[in-house]
Amino acid sequence: MVAILRVNMRTGAMQRKPLQGKALIMGGRRLTSEIVAQEVPPLCHPLGKHNKLVLACGPLGGTLVSSVNRLSIGAKSPLTGGIKESNAGGVTAYLMGRLGLRAIVLEDKPQTSGQWRILHITAACANLIPANDLAGLGVFKKAEILHERYGKDCGLTLIGPVAERLLPSAGITNTDPDAMPSRYNGRGGLGAVMASKGILAIVFDAKEATKEVLHDAKVFSALSRQVAELINTTPQTAEIFRKYGTSAMMATTNAIGALPTRNFSLGSFNGFEKINADALYNNIVQRGGVGSPSHACMKGCLIKCSNVYPSADGKQVLCSPMEYETMGLMGSNLDIDDLDAIARLNNVCNDLGIDTIELGAALGIAMETGVLPFGDVQATENALEEIRQGTVFGRVLAAGAAVTGIVLGSLRVPVVKNQALPAYDPRSIKGLGVTYATSTQGADHTAGNTARAPIPQHLKDHQVETSKNAQRGFTLMDSLGFCLMLGGAVKDLNLMLDLVHARYGVRVSLEEVQKAAANTLQQEREFNLKAGLSEAHDTLPEFFYEEVNPTNQAVFDISQKEMQEVFK
Amino acid sequence: MVAILRVNMRTGAMQRKPLQGKALIMGGRRLTSEIVAQEVPPLCHPLGKHNKLVLACGPLGGTLVSSVNRLSIGAKSPLTGGIKESNAGGVTAYLMGRLGLRAIVLEDKPQTSGQWRILHITAACANLIPANDLAGLGVFKKAEILHERYGKDCGLTLIGPVAERLLPSAGITNTDPDAMPSRYNGRGGLGAVMASKGILAIVFDAKEATKEVLHDAKVFSALSRQVAELINTTPQTAEIFRKYGTSAMMATTNAIGALPTRNFSLGSFNGFEKINADALYNNIVQRGGVGSPSHACMKGCLIKCSNVYPSADGKQVLCSPMEYETMGLMGSNLDIDDLDAIARLNNVCNDLGIDTIELGAALGIAMETGVLPFGDVQATENALEEIRQGTVFGRVLAAGAAVTGIVLGSLRVPVVKNQALPAYDPRSIKGLGVTYATSTQGADHTAGNTARAPIPQHLKDHQVETSKNAQRGFTLMDSLGFCLMLGGAVKDLNLMLDLVHARYGVRVSLEEVQKAAANTLQQEREFNLKAGLSEAHDTLPEFFYEEVNPTNQAVFDISQKEMQEVFK
Repeated sequence: MVAILRVNMRTGAMQRKPLQGKALIMGGRRLTSEIVAQEVPPLCHPLGKHNKLVLACGPLGGTLVSSVNRLSIGAKSPLTGGIKESNAGGVTAYLMGRLGLRAIVLEDKPQTSGQWRILHITAACANLIPANDLAGLGVFKKAEILHERYGKDCGLTLIGPVAERLLPSAGITNTDPDAMPSRYNGRGGLGAVMASKGILAIVFDAKEATKEVLHDAKVFSALSRQVAELINTTPQTAEIFRKYGTSAMMATTNAIGALPTRNFSLGSFNGFEKINADALYNNIVQRGGVGSPSHACMKGCLIKCSNVYPSADGKQVLCSPMEYETMGLMGSNLDIDDLDAIARLNNVCNDLGIDTIELGAALGIAMETGVLPFGDVQATENALEEIRQGTVFGRVLAAGAAVTGIVLGSLRVPVVKNQALPAYDPRSIKGLGVTYATSTQGADHTAGNTARAPIPQHLKDHQVETSKNAQRGFTLMDSLGFCLMLGGAVKDLNLMLDLVHARYGVRVSLEEVQKAAANTLQQEREFNLKAGLSEAHDTLPEFFYEEVNPTNQAVFDISQKEMQEVFK
Repeated sequence: MVAILRVNMRTGAMQRKPLQGKALIMGGRRLTSEIVAQEVPPLCHPLGKHNKLVLACGPLGGTLVSSVNRLSIGAKSPLTGGIKESNAGGVTAYLMGRLGLRAIVLEDKPQTSGQWRILHITAACANLIPANDLAGLGVFKKAEILHERYGKDCGLTLIGPVAERLLPSAGITNTDPDAMPSRYNGRGGLGAVMASKGILAIVFDAKEATKEVLHDAKVFSALSRQVAELINTTPQTAEIFRKYGTSAMMATTNAIGALPTRNFSLGSFNGFEKINADALYNNIVQRGGVGSPSHACMKGCLIKCSNVYPSADGKQVLCSPMEYETMGLMGSNLDIDDLDAIARLNNVCNDLGIDTIELGAALGIAMETGVLPFGDVQATENALEEIRQGTVFGRVLAAGAAVTGIVLGSLRVPVVKNQALPAYDPRSIKGLGVTYATSTQGADHTAGNTARAPIPQHLKDHQVETSKNAQRGFTLMDSLGFCLMLGGAVKDLNLMLDLVHARYGVRVSLEEVQKAAANTLQQEREFNLKAGLSEAHDTLPEFFYEEVNPTNQAVFDISQKEMQEVFK
C-alpha cells in the first residue's frame, strides 16, 4: 500500500490515506505542488499555521533502480512568497518508498513555539517525540545523536540552527547512504517552514518494512538492468558525470563568461584552474584515503556524480559532496581560488543548514559593498561563525541576498523573486536567464537549465522556446522523482514508465506525464498569482540589462514581453 | 509664470517648462503621481537611474492663505516597490510657489556614486553645487551649515545619514518657518531616492522673487479672509487642533483599543495618561520658555496644530513638533511612558532623517523578539546611535519593519506592502484597516483616515465605503496642496477653488478635481500593478485576522474580496 501521511502539528493527529490507480503515479514536484496549491491559502504567512510542508518521492521511490529516488519538498516559500519545490538526493525518498509513503504532509503548527520534536516513522507507526535537547545544535551533531539514538541505518531529514531561527535561506538536509547529512533541499527557505512546524528531524526507520510484491518482478528487474546499461554506456553519465560530477560545468561556464565572479561583475575567473573540475578530481585522487571522486547520493544510483573531498592527508572528509553551484557562488563569486577553503566553507554551511547559493550571493554583496574583503577566507569563515552564533550580521546574511542587499544599500543584487541566482550568468546563458525570470520557483537552474542546449548561449534567438521546453522537461523529471542527470542516459522515458507499470500494474503514457508537468507549472503559476507574484516579478535584476558582461560584451536583452511566451 | 523644473543628475542639464490654462491646477499628489506614472518604468530599480524624484506644491502654493502650502514628494518607493507620494508641511511648498515652481523633477543619476551635491534655486537660476563636506552629517548640522552658507531665510529640503546609506525608511525633511528642519516627507524611503540622485539638500532662496500679480487680488484677499474666519470659528481647528494638535487623537484611540501597544499586541496603554494630549499640553505650558503648544508648520497657517516641546527648564527645544504618530509608535508601541524620552528619541530620529512610524514598528519587533527590552529608553537610544553609526543592527532597523521582521524571525510584523502601520490598530478602526490594505501607498493613515467617521469603528459595516470616500477625499486635498486639517473647517471646497480662480483666472469645478482625484488613484493603482503590487498585496498581516484585540475582542474580519469594492 502506498499512502500519504498527514501529521497535524498542533493536535498530533495522524492520518494515512492510500493512493490507488493512476494516483500511484503522482509524486515528486507534481504532488507537492498539487497539495500546496489546493490546500495552502496563497496569502498565508509562510511560517504560520496555514502553510504546509510536503515531502514526496516519485513512483519508483523505494526501489533500487538507478537515479529514481529524488526527494521533493514543497510549501509556500518564506523566501519567494510563492510556491516552492526543492529537490534533493539522499536516502529519504528511498526510505519513504520502502515505508509505503508517497508523501508526508506536516500541517498546522504547535500552539507554543520553542517546543521541538522529531517525527519518528517506522513501518508500524509514526510518533512525535520531544527533542528540545537537540535545539541549537549543528546538523552534524544532531545527526550523530539521532543515529546513536535510533540506529545508523535510519535515514534522517533534518534542519540546522539557521532554520530554527526561521531565516529564509534555511535548507532541509538528508542523510546519504553513508549516513552523512549533506543532501540538501536547499532552496527557498523550506528549513524555516519545517522549523515553524516545530520539527527538528524526521527519522525514517525501514528495518521492519516488508519486502514489496511487484506487479511483474521479472520485467521490473529486466528493465532496471536496461537503465543501468544505458547509464553505464552513455559517455555523459558513465564518464563525465561519474568522474567530475556537476563540477564539469565549470569549464563551459568559465569559457563563455557565465561563471559568476565577484558578485556577478565578471563572467570568467582568474583563479579558475585552481577550483575547476580537474583540480577537484586531481585533489581527490591524489589525496586518496577517505576521498572519492564518484559517490552515489542515493541508494542504487550508478551515475555517482557525487564525491567525497578529503583533507590534504586523505584522513578526513573536508566536504561531501563538492558541487558546482557552491564552487561558483562561494568560490569565484567571492574571489576565493582555494578549493580546500571552499570545501571547509561548504562543510560549515552544511552544518548550519543553509543554502550555499543564497549565502554565496549574500556574501558577494557583502564583499562588493566593502563589509567583507573579496577573497578573504578568514573573514568568510568569521561570517559563517556569526551565522552560527545568530548575531545580527549573521542573521542578515542568512536572511538571503535580497535582504542583505537592502541592508547594505547595494543595487547589484542577483535575485529573482527574492531568490539568489545559481552559478550561471544570465547574460551568457540567456535561456537560463529566461528560466530564472519566469520560473515559478525564483532564480533556479534546476527549474530548466539550458546550459547544454545546442544554441549560441549569449544570443537571444530561440532562448525563450529552449527555456520553455527545459522547464517542462525538468518539471516532468522532478514529478517522477528522477534525477535530472538520468535524462543524459535514458532518452526515451517510456522505459521508465514501463518500470512504473511493472511495479504497480498501472499504465500511464508519456503524453500523460508530459501534460501533467505542464499542468503542474500552470497550477504553480496560478498559486503565485494569487500569492502576489505577478508577471511583474518575471524579470531579472536591472543590472543584467544594463551592465555589459566583460567576457562576451552581452547584456540580457530578452524583454519581459518576449519571455511571457513561456506561458503559452 | 508657473513652471516645472527638471534637473538631469547625470548631465546637469536643466529645463523649465511653463504650465498654462487648466494645467495650472495640477499640483501635489496628482502631479507627482502623474509624472511618476507616465515617466518612470514600473519595473525599474527604485534607487537606479530610471526612477525620478518629484517635488510638487499645490495651486495655492506660495500664497499666505492658511493651510495650502503642503509639499508632495513622489517617486517609485524603495520600501513598497510601488508608486509613492509622501506629504509634509514646512516652508518648501511656499518657497516653490514664490519661485514659480509647481514641481521639481530630479532625473537620472550621477555616473559615480559618493559625489554629493546640493541643488540651489533662486528666482534667477538653479545650480548644482558640490557638497561632499556635508556627507555623513546629521540633518540639524547640515541645516545649520547651509543656513550659514546661504542665509537663514532660505528654505531647505534635505536628507540625513540614513538616506545616504540608501536605507528604505529614510525620509526627506523640510525647514519650518523657524528654520527648524523637522517637517518630514517621512514615508516610503523617498530620502533614499533623493540620495540615489546624489543630492543632499535643495536650497530655496526666494529673496529676489518678484511679487506675484494676482488675477483678482481683491477677491483673493477677501476669500483668504473667509478661510481664516472659518478656521478661527470652527471648534475642531480653532480649539482642538490648535491646542493639542494631532495628539488629540490619542484619547480616542486609547479608548477604543486602537492605540498600538507593545508591537500591536494591545490596543490600550497603561501609561496612556503620561503620554497623552493633556500631558503634552500641560508640560509645554507649565515649562514655558521656548515651548509652544500652537505652532505653524507652514507660512500663513492659522490652525497651528504643530508645537514646540521644551526641556524641563523651558530653555531648550527637546523636539519640534511632537506628533501623535510618533507618540504612538515610539511611545505606547514600545511600552515607553515617558514623554520627555519620546521627545528626545523623536529629535534624534529627525536628525538621522528617519521615518518614526517605520522605525517605531521596527523597534517594536526588536522588542517583542527580545533583542531589546520593552520600555527601555536607554536601549532604544543606543539603537538610534547604532543607526547613526551605520552598524548592521542599525541598518536593519533603518531598513524598515518588514526587513527587521525577517531578520529577527518575527511573524508579527505590522506592515502592508512592506510599509509599517501608523498608530491606529486596524482591528479597532476597520475603515482605516481597509485603507491600509487597499491604498496604493502601503499602510498609511494619510491615505484615507476614517478614525473620525460616525460609525462603530470596530464593526465591519460601512467600512469599505467609508475608506473609499476617505481615500478619494484625502487624495483630492493632497492634490491641491491643502492640509488635511483644513477639511475640518472648510467644508465646501468651492471656496478654495474660487481662490485658485482669483489667483490665475482659471476656473475648475469641484466635480473636475474630484474626478481628477479618482483618476490619480486609478493611475497609481495601474502603476503598482505593473510594478508587481497586485490585488494579493491588498491585505493586512495575518495576525490581525487571527489575534483578538484585547480591548474590544475584535479581529479584522473584512475579506480581501469585500475590500476590492474600494476600486469600483
